[in-house]
Order: sequence, then C-alpha cells, then structure tokens
Amino acid sequence: METIRLRIAARALGPGDRLPSIRGLAASLGVSPSTVVEAYDRLAAEGQIRARRGAGFFVASGAAPPLSLTEMQSPAARAVDPFWVTRQSLDAAGDRPKPGCGWLPADWMPEAALRKALRQVARGETRLLMEYSPTLGAPSLRRVIAARLSEEGLAAPPEQILLTTSATQALDLVCRLLLRPGDPVLVDDPCFFNFQALLKAHQARILSVPFLPGGPDPAAFEAVVARERPRLYLTNAALHNPTGASLLPQVAHRIVASAARYDMPIVEDDIFADYEPDPSPRLAALDGLSNVIRIGSFSKTISASLRTGYIAARADWIAPLTDLQVAGHFSGPSPFVAAVLAELLTGGSYRKHLDDLRRRLAGARRTAVQMLAPLGISPVLLPRGGFTLWCRLPDGVDAVAMAEAALSQGTVLAPGNVFSPTLSAPNLMRFNVTQMTDPRLPEVLKAAMRGA
Amino acid sequence: METIRLRIAARALGPGDRLPSIRGLAASLGVSPSTVVEAYDRLAAEGQIRARRGAGFFVASGAAPPLSLTEMQSPAARAVDPFWVTRQSLDAAGDRPKPGCGWLPADWMPEAALRKALRQVARGETRLLMEYSPTLGAPSLRRVIAARLSEEGLAAPPEQILLTTSATQALDLVCRLLLRPGDPVLVDDPCFFNFQALLKAHQARILSVPFLPGGPDPAAFEAVVARERPRLYLTNAALHNPTGASLLPQVAHRIVASAARYDMPIVEDDIFADYEPDPSPRLAALDGLSNVIRIGSFSKTISASLRTGYIAARADWIAPLTDLQVAGHFSGPSPFVAAVLAELLTGGSYRKHLDDLRRRLAGARRTAVQMLAPLGISPVLLPRGGFTLWCRLPDGVDAVAMAEAALSQGTVLAPGNVFSPTLSAPNLMRFNVTQMTDPRLPEVLKAAMRGA
Repeated sequence: METIRLRIAARALGPGDRLPSIRGLAASLGVSPSTVVEAYDRLAAEGQIRARRGAGFFVASGAAPPLSLTEMQSPAARAVDPFWVTRQSLDAAGDRPKPGCGWLPADWMPEAALRKALRQVARGETRLLMEYSPTLGAPSLRRVIAARLSEEGLAAPPEQILLTTSATQALDLVCRLLLRPGDPVLVDDPCFFNFQALLKAHQARILSVPFLPGGPDPAAFEAVVARERPRLYLTNAALHNPTGASLLPQVAHRIVASAARYDMPIVEDDIFADYEPDPSPRLAALDGLSNVIRIGSFSKTISASLRTGYIAARADWIAPLTDLQVAGHFSGPSPFVAAVLAELLTGGSYRKHLDDLRRRLAGARRTAVQMLAPLGISPVLLPRGGFTLWCRLPDGVDAVAMAEAALSQGTVLAPGNVFSPTLSAPNLMRFNVTQMTDPRLPEVLKAAMRGA
Repeated sequence: METIRLRIAARALGPGDRLPSIRGLAASLGVSPSTVVEAYDRLAAEGQIRARRGAGFFVASGAAPPLSLTEMQSPAARAVDPFWVTRQSLDAAGDRPKPGCGWLPADWMPEAALRKALRQVARGETRLLMEYSPTLGAPSLRRVIAARLSEEGLAAPPEQILLTTSATQALDLVCRLLLRPGDPVLVDDPCFFNFQALLKAHQARILSVPFLPGGPDPAAFEAVVARERPRLYLTNAALHNPTGASLLPQVAHRIVASAARYDMPIVEDDIFADYEPDPSPRLAALDGLSNVIRIGSFSKTISASLRTGYIAARADWIAPLTDLQVAGHFSGPSPFVAAVLAELLTGGSYRKHLDDLRRRLAGARRTAVQMLAPLGISPVLLPRGGFTLWCRLPDGVDAVAMAEAALSQGTVLAPGNVFSPTLSAPNLMRFNVTQMTDPRLPEVLKAAMRGA
C-alpha cells in the first residue's frame, strides 16, 4: 500500500493511470500476489484507486493533488519515481562512479576546441555578451542547424528553427502547445525516464507501446493510436534511450503513416544522433516536418554546461511555440552560448571529434560487455552507437533493489523500471559504458546484486 | 468585433475574462459607446462572449482554443496582445531606438568586468565548462545570493535557493507548482506585460488591483483577496514595472498581513532591486519567506545574454520546484554562466558599477523628463530609481495608435494598455530613459502623436 501511495504522491502514478499488474508488482517487491491483491483492495476501499472489471486497477481522480507539497519530500517516494536517477546522477559527488547517468565524462568532450571558441567569443562583439536573444534565438546557430538538418535530407529553413535552453525545454514547449491536462500521450516502453517526469508535470495520461529492437511494435502502435487517439507520440529516433536500438526503415514508415492517418504529431528527440556511425532512418526526414517535430541539442557531444537545444517544426507551429518561449523565458537562450556553439560547430574540428568519439564509444561498449559477462549481466541488444547498454540481470535480481544497494556504496545505477511506464522491466538495467572504468565497479555490482 | 475576436485568438483575452468596459474600449478605439454595445451584442449572438447581468461582458468558455495555431499568426492580433512589446524590442534591428524596451543599452553594462570574469572561468575548471548543473544550480552562486539576501535581512540558506535560467523561468516554475487551469491570480494594474503572457500560458484567470504611487490599493487588495481568493499575488516590490513606484511600509505590511490571512502566496519579482539608491520595503523581508516567494536575476545589471535567475522560498516548496525544473529543464542553469556571475559579484567591482549605474540613471531620468515636457508628455510619478517613466500623453492621444505609428518609423514604444489587465491605460506610455538618446526621437514622437 505504501509503495502505491508514495508513487501517487510523487506523481510517478497520476489520476487515471493503470497500476502495475498484480503479478508484476508482486515480483518487483518480492511479495506474494495475494499480498498485492489485499493491498489493492484496501487502497480501493480508501478511494485511492478503483478497480475496472477485467481492466485492472487505476488511480482514482483526485487521489492526490497533481503535485503534493508534502509527500514529494518523502525519500521513499523518491526511490521509485522517474526523478530518481536524474537526482542521484546530477547531485552525486563528482568522484562517484555513475554507470547509471546519461552523459559522457568531461574528458570525452572537446575541451580544447571549446576553450578556444570561448576565448574567441569572449573577445568578440559586445552585444553577444550583453544583450537578450531574439525570440527565435541567435540566427548564426539557427543557420548552422539548418545546414546540418539539410545534410540529413530535412529541409528546415532557419525561420523554422527555434532555439531553446535544452532539448528538454524544447519538449516542454511542445507539450505546452499541444497538451491539456488529461490528454493521452504515447511513449515507448521503455523510454527515457524524464519523458515520464515531464509528461506527469503536464498532467498527461501516459500510454506506452512495447519497444522492440527495430523500433516500436508497429501492430501495437497502430492499435493504441486507433483506440486511444493519443495527442502526441514521443520517441528517440537515432539510438533509442535506454535500449540503444535504431529504427528499421519499414517500422519508421509504418509509424509515420499511421501517425499521419490519425493526425497525431510525433516528437522526435534526436539528442544522440551525432553518436551514430552512419545515419539510421529519421521520422522527420520521412515526414518532412509536416507532422513530425524534431528536437535536439549539443549537450551530449559538446558541453552539458553550455546548453542550447532546438525545435525544427512547421512554420505555423514555430510561431506559437515562440510566444510560449517568450511567456516562460522572455527571450531565447544565451546569444553568448549560441555563438560559442556555432563557432565550434563550424570550426572543422567537430567532425574529427565525432569520429574519435564514435571509435572510442565502440571500444567502450566492447569493454563493458566483457566486464559484465562474468557477472551474468548481458545486453538485450548490441547498439550501433552511443553509450547505453540495456542489460538483463541474472534471474531473481531486482534492478531497483540492486540500484539502491549500489547507491549505498556511492555508485549510481539506472534500474529498468525507472524507464518503463508499465514497470515491466524489474530485471533490466541501463549501463553507460563511458562511466564504467572504475576498477572497483565489478566488485560493487557483485555486492549490489547480493544485496538485491 | 474584430478587436475582441483577435484578442481572444491571441489569448490576450481568455475564457472567463471580463471584456473591456464599453466606455473604456470606446475611448481607446475612438468610437462611440453605442458602436461597442452593438459589437458586443453581435459577439454574444455568435456565442463568443456572454453578458452577465450587471457584471458586464465575459469571454465564453471555448470561445477559442487556449492557444490557437492559426489566429496567433495574425499580425493584427499581435498588435494588441501582451507579447507585442517583447517581440518588437527583442526582434527589432539593433540600430533602432527602443524607448519601449525593458533593458539598458549594452554600453551601460559592466563590460570590462564581465570579459575579465569570462576569461577567468574559461581558463578554469573543466567541469564548469562541460558538466550538467546540480538540480539546485551551482552552489557558489547560491551562496553569493544567500549572502546578498541576508544583507536585506532575509535569511535564506543556499539550500532554499533554486537557480533558474531567468527570473521569468523562475516565475514559470512557481506557476506550474501552484496553479491549475482556471485558477484566479492577482496582479497589479498596471503590471509587467509578460506577467499576463505567462499567466495566460498557464490558463490562469487574471484579476487585478489598482496600483497607486505607494503600492497596490490596500482596501481594494483586501476586498479582491477576500472575494475571489486568488491562488497567488504577483508583483514587483522594488521599483514597480511599469510605474517605477516603490511600496510604502504600511502598504507592504497590510499586503503581507491580508495575504497571510487568506493563505495566499505572494511572488515578489525583484529584478530591479539593484537599481535602488537605497532599499525600499520588501514583502519577503516582512514575511520571512513563509508565504512570500522571492525571485530575481542579474539580467538588468550584469548581462541579459548570460542569464541566471533564482527562487528563494520555503524549503518545502523548493523541493517540488526542483523536481519541476528537472522535468522541464533536466538540470539547473549553466555552471559556466553561474561561475561567471559569482566571479563578477564577488569581484568587488560590482558595488562600484551599481553606484555609477544609479547616478547615471538619475541623470537619464532628469534628461528624459525635460525632453518629454515640451511634447506634453509628463510622468505620473518621479521614481526613486530605475529606467522607467510612466507617462501621461496629451489628451486624445491613444498610446497603442501612437506606438504603431512610431513602429512604422522603426521606433519601439510601450503603450499603457499592454501593461493594463483592464485596458484602462489607453492614454499612458512607459518610457525607458536609457534608450532615449537618439536625437531624432523627439521628432519621431511628435510625428507618432500626430499619426495617433
């Protein structure tokens, strides 16, 4: 009962959400199904949840305020909510190993090129240092992004590109434009945990489609879109997070076609695109930005400190998105930061940096697979690029319990259910292969599995 | 009819909003009241608006989608919406005079000190250049802000300070935490136009209290709070925008007391505080952050390009605000930018910069008053500090028409009704005294008044 109460309080479960299956929750908590049944019955008696004949249990509307000021504080609630990994990774002491975090170590980033660009812009035009950004963001960086998109076969003139402070904020603007409280939104199962955090903040009703090695299950996708008419589908095209999978062309085609049939916009979050050795199919390229909104940033390949994201979309969506950015941020993101990124992206060193990065990532993936194998931890698939390995744990090991045990040893892990809207990944873990060089890590993982 | 339709389409008027009074709109459009009555009757017949006996006319619910994707495009709609001045000021060519904008010219900012701080941080620690921020934001800058607040008698430990990308984004987070669609929110009449833009984006119902030279009318404030129970009161304490007025101590006391009586949080946006020659009463200082949320930034005194804002609030509000920042921005604002600001703020040159700035502002206010007098434009009050002059235009001059005429000459003005939720400032204009040095300006203003 406490688990469900806290998930509701922490908005990990919102009004109308389906509760975990009795069998699934029993397994992930290591209790008997009958115990879960009893807990659900009591919560229903309290009016916290409702049973629907044959459909399972659902959170009652008004079970908790959308954002409770008190229960949000509960550390227990935080242990299982979608914020858990982010909070641990961002706020952990710098020296702690973070195989659960979603970024590269600083020494993988183009430090020399960034310092050079910083010096140049710091010596440059006063207005870049002092003035607000135009509402769309700095034209120089928008031109660079437009050129990069056209290399992908995506025609997006600079007027159709809106700069934001991050890809996350780009997604937030899109949600504000297209979503109203209670709107159904479709995501992948599993998906990036912060998608759930953001959609909960917008009080969306989260629907999910099973994500297979070639992309979302097309038949399941078509069925849920036809039945639930989601207001939006949110996904990563290149190098899906957490699985590292890429779309198969025929899957991409079916997704774009059925989204268009039901007039459902797709948001394609492509922040890992530059990790790809060679480009995989893009929904935005197939669709030509009529129904797909492309978002991205350079936080994963240049700097997470000097963040700038972008939205490429239809002109008639860019205008209201720009007004929403004015309302919530006044001006666009820093002209100084945009100038530094534009300088670095056009400097010629960026392409070489990416080549080195891809080689280094491939090596790190091989090393990580070899290191995890003796522990009985094996990747569900071998990604074409990027830093994520989506791994199955030995039978009986609960990933959340393992992550909590590891955290008590100062190591941050990313348990599968944090990524799974249906909490159906209790035995899976996402590893970041660039954050696994600490020689103590195998021992820490072994101990954490024993503790789980 | 078109005026009202477009205001609804542009969300300058939302469902449930009261329409301008018949007399007021007739005056600001320069038509007879009977014409307005007829237009309102027709709109009511169309179902766009509804009449309530004795209470006036109101926008019908569902009159327009909260954010229309099409009508938002209409330039006519944009001419009167709360985004107008922002859009014109931010997107105007650099060389155009902007007496309507809300910031200082670049050459009023501490350029040498900023370049020095930039060089130092650009040479500094790698993690500041490369890594994500902790969820609360960089500790160094939070400590500096805590120290500055304690000088004001406001005890806010660094753990109660959340860094944001701007004061606007700080306000946006507070709205997300405390507001649900349709919630009533109280603002000053007049108030900063972007408060209205942001509250519309949150689908809040905007209520207003007349703002007098000593602060909001205390009797009217107590009446509206008792009657409407607003969810929030949003104001500028030091140097109110657009009037430049400061709170009288007894007004501040009554506001804090009646807000507490009805358990209504107050957001005190203090971005102009550092322009004050000597500090005026602060709601947060009287209240001690139990019911007041203090927000601020350094965009007005250091740089609008390297923006960082902050929220100082109760610990039990900071935690969910931090989760909302994670949901919508992933990490806190740039550690690089925060380090540059902390460097500059602790460098010792900042205090001298402010002294010079205040002297220079006082001089610019005198010059502007002298320049406007022969045009028949006179300030409603003489502010103690800052760059705004809230001025009355000669009888019969409509500020919106004058601003549109000036814009056609490439000059951006800020007409009174853009600041007035009740559109009751058709004859007033906000001038920025630091943006009035262009020798052609008096002629432009004269011509614009003739054109109005």
